[in-house]
Amino acid sequence: MADVIANMSMSLDGFVADPEDRIDHLFEWFGNGDVEVPTAVDWATFKTSEASAKMLRAAMENVGALVTGRRLFNLTQGWGGAHPMGVPVFVVTHEEPADWPHPDAPFTFVTDGLESAVEQAKKTAGDKNVAVASTTIAQQCLNLGLLDGIQVDLVPVLLGSGVRFFDHLDATTKLTDPEVTEGTGVTHLSYRIKR
Amino acid sequence: MADVIANMSMSLDGFVADPEDRIDHLFEWFGNGDVEVPTAVDWATFKTSEASAKMLRAAMENVGALVTGRRLFNLTQGWGGAHPMGVPVFVVTHEEPADWPHPDAPFTFVTDGLESAVEQAKKTAGDKNVAVASTTIAQQCLNLGLLDGIQVDLVPVLLGSGVRFFDHLDATTKLTDPEVTEGTGVTHLSYRIKR
Repeated sequence: MADVIANMSMSLDGFVADPEDRIDHLFEWFGNGDVEVPTAVDWATFKTSEASAKMLRAAMENVGALVTGRRLFNLTQGWGGAHPMGVPVFVVTHEEPADWPHPDAPFTFVTDGLESAVEQAKKTAGDKNVAVASTTIAQQCLNLGLLDGIQVDLVPVLLGSGVRFFDHLDATTKLTDPEVTEGTGVTHLSYRIKR
Repeated sequence: MADVIANMSMSLDGFVADPEDRIDHLFEWFGNGDVEVPTAVDWATFKTSEASAKMLRAAMENVGALVTGRRLFNLTQGWGGAHPMGVPVFVVTHEEPADWPHPDAPFTFVTDGLESAVEQAKKTAGDKNVAVASTTIAQQCLNLGLLDGIQVDLVPVLLGSGVRFFDHLDATTKLTDPEVTEGTGVTHLSYRIKR
């Protein structure tokens, strides 16, 4: 059965973007190395340390679907209809976009709630994992008990302000000790939720 | 010359205490192992994993003085006049406590500001490090450029709310990649500030 895993690049003080939604500092590690990691799209090839590359290749092999929110979908203009992970994307939204120019792309707009989106994504992912790429969706998944794991790509910077990965959580959540992968400009920490 | 290093046990979502100033979850790693680490006081002996014990022994050897704030001093009732680290303590405060029952203990009440406290602590520490054990003092040190390193004992728990390690920071601060020590119930991350 697919695990649902939230994953973000986060500063040591807990931010995934600065107050203007910029992610420059937090995404530097995707391009600061010698090892090329191709993605499913032409416009994105990562160049990372060997340690990060190994982690990224494993993640891309193991992810079978992605759940995201409407805000990130809008910010990225729907990734031009092709997400770098190369997997079907489920967008939690109140309304389908009226002018979506990529009707044949593997994007599903889910208007009947987060739990439905996660269920559909798990069905699509089969044995593979569902990645959650949105802070608000990750927070709601945590509060609903839908999350199995959290991967934090911890970036050695203090931003001071911005958008927090973890906010609006209802309760204390215990995690396992993480699997640690030491990259360059990033420390990958892979936790599982304790039930 | 002594380095000034801020050190706290922090949850993955950035808290060093819950809203009621409780630190139960965050300090579990000090007592969840088989390896005894004596401190300078009878009332505190740590029992940790071997990895954490090694880190703690090194920290205690390398720290020569401690700077703290009045709030933590009050919360701990001045550690009964003897801090577990066994080093002189410099308390940043507006006023000396009127009824301090341990006048001979190595506690100095610094009423002329944080920079003076750090300067006095560095002089006392000599070649050893100055530890900063207070979120507000650490934040002020960061903003004043007085900090050389940050050690985060990252605990695998999401608290959801509480007192943040990093708050009220004036600017973005870049750090080196951390030295990582994987304990049990804690991941020790030792960063240096990039200038």
